Order: sequence, then structure tokens, then C-alpha cells
Amino acid sequence: MFTPQAIGFIRTPYKETSAIPKGLGAKHDAEGVLELLPEFEAGLKDVEGFSHLFVLWVFDRSEGFDLVGAPPVDDQPHGVFATRSPRRPNPIGLTVVELLRRERGSLFVRGVDMLEGTPILDIKPYMSSIPAEKLRRGWLAEAEALRR
Amino acid sequence: MFTPQAIGFIRTPYKETSAIPKGLGAKHDAEGVLELLPEFEAGLKDVEGFSHLFVLWVFDRSEGFDLVGAPPVDDQPHGVFATRSPRRPNPIGLTVVELLRRERGSLFVRGVDMLEGTPILDIKPYMSSIPAEKLRRGWLAEAEALRR
Repeated sequence: MFTPQAIGFIRTPYKETSAIPKGLGAKHDAEGVLELLPEFEAGLKDVEGFSHLFVLWVFDRSEGFDLVGAPPVDDQPHGVFATRSPRRPNPIGLTVVELLRRERGSLFVRGVDMLEGTPILDIKPYMSSIPAEKLRRGWLAEAEALRR
Repeated sequence: MFTPQAIGFIRTPYKETSAIPKGLGAKHDAEGVLELLPEFEAGLKDVEGFSHLFVLWVFDRSEGFDLVGAPPVDDQPHGVFATRSPRRPNPIGLTVVELLRRERGSLFVRGVDMLEGTPILDIKPYMSSIPAEKLRRGWLAEAEALRR
């Protein structure tokens, strides 16, 4: 295995978990900044060309995990690997953000859903999408249908 | 931070890196199996409802990292965070796979691009796509255009 290291930290408007929009139809259009540590800035070369990025980050204020639990959008319990729960065996978060602009080691982005000061593990270019018509979304689609 | 632990291992047809399709237009439709360790199987509850999953895994046969390097699809060097290079500060891979079926702790999937026996860190449901018309793909789109 490997020893995770922060390549930088995320500036977001969210100081507490309760402030992060959750649930069905929650909009994640908050803006934030991915601030890379100076020693990793060179790794951003040409990232400006991509409109969207994957950000891998650490749920650093979460401890332990639950294999089954009810997410905020549903009252039914689901397996942790079928949800985005922070209480995971490896507490890694994944968020797709829209890249607005870059200033040296800082990426200004839209779509953050992490707490202020969250450590960043990795940034990857978003290269292709699964077409919406090919997606099935299991319990999430069912929960949405029930709320309509 | 946290100590990464394998939640399972991936069975793929690829024994060597050279066997994995790379480059522009490379098709990743190989089938494989995500085999979870028995103690994590309960976390798969309701995963069957999703057509696609994110798999987070470890580049366990890669050592060290390069901040800038030329990917197989281009002769121009790009920053590691603008590519999918295995030589990353945190050697975590991310692959979207199509879920074909589940048998207990085994997920049969299409779209694997990892080496046989790769450790799995996490599985997350793929809930939504960025519409193709909203994507910009930087150096990758340029490299594709040059090859046409």
C-alpha cells in the first residue's frame, strides 16, 4: 500500500457538515478553490484545458465506517458502496467540479461539497461521460420518484 | 490522514501493463470481477441497482511520481493532474465500470483497465454525468484532432 499525503487543501464555504446541501435535488454549485502545495504546482500543467475535474479528497473529520446505513435522501438503509456516505472503510471522497480558472497553484472551481480545509489527494481530468440514457441509478431513482 | 486498506481485489485479463489498451480510441470493454473481501460484502447492499460504478484502486505496481510527463497518447508533456498517469503523488486509480451482475461479494463488470490482482480501495455509485456538450477536454481533444 502507500501512505496518503495531501497535495493541497480545499477552500470552501462550508465550516460544518450541516451547512453542505444534501438530499434529493441538492444543488452543488458552490464555488471553492483547490490550493495546491507549491511543490505540486508543476503537476497542473495544461489542466486549464479541461472544463471538469475529478477531485479525490479525504473525509478528514469522519471516523470509522458503517457497512450499511440510511443516506440523508432516503429512509431505507443501503450498503456504503451504493452511497456517498463519509463513513467508508477508506475515507476517500470523490467530487466532479467545473474548472473556472487557474492562478498558479490555485484552481477556482464550481461544485464543491467538502468542508473548508479538506485535504486533497489527487486531481484527474474528466475525459468522458456515460450518456444519461445509459444510466440506471437504483435506490436513488426510486427515492426521487417517491418524493415527486 | 488514514491508512489505506484493500476492501478486495480485481480480477482482470491483464497480467502486464503492456497488455492494457492505451492511446487514443483505446477501447476499455474488457470484463473483470471486483472481488470484495467477505468482511466488506454487506456494504454492497443495493449496489445492483446502479448501471455504472466508480472504482478507486491502487497503482500497486507503480513507484514514485513525475509531476510532468508525456502520456502514451501524446508526445507533449502534461502535468500529472491533467493525465491518468500511474506515477502520481498518491497512486490512486479511478475507473468507471459498467456493472453486469453481482454474485454475493463479486461484482462482474465491463470496462476494467487495471492489472490482475489490483487492490480496491472504494466503490461508489455513478449518479450523474456531465453532458458531453459541456465538456472541454484540453490536450486530449487536440491530440485526437491531430491524429485524424
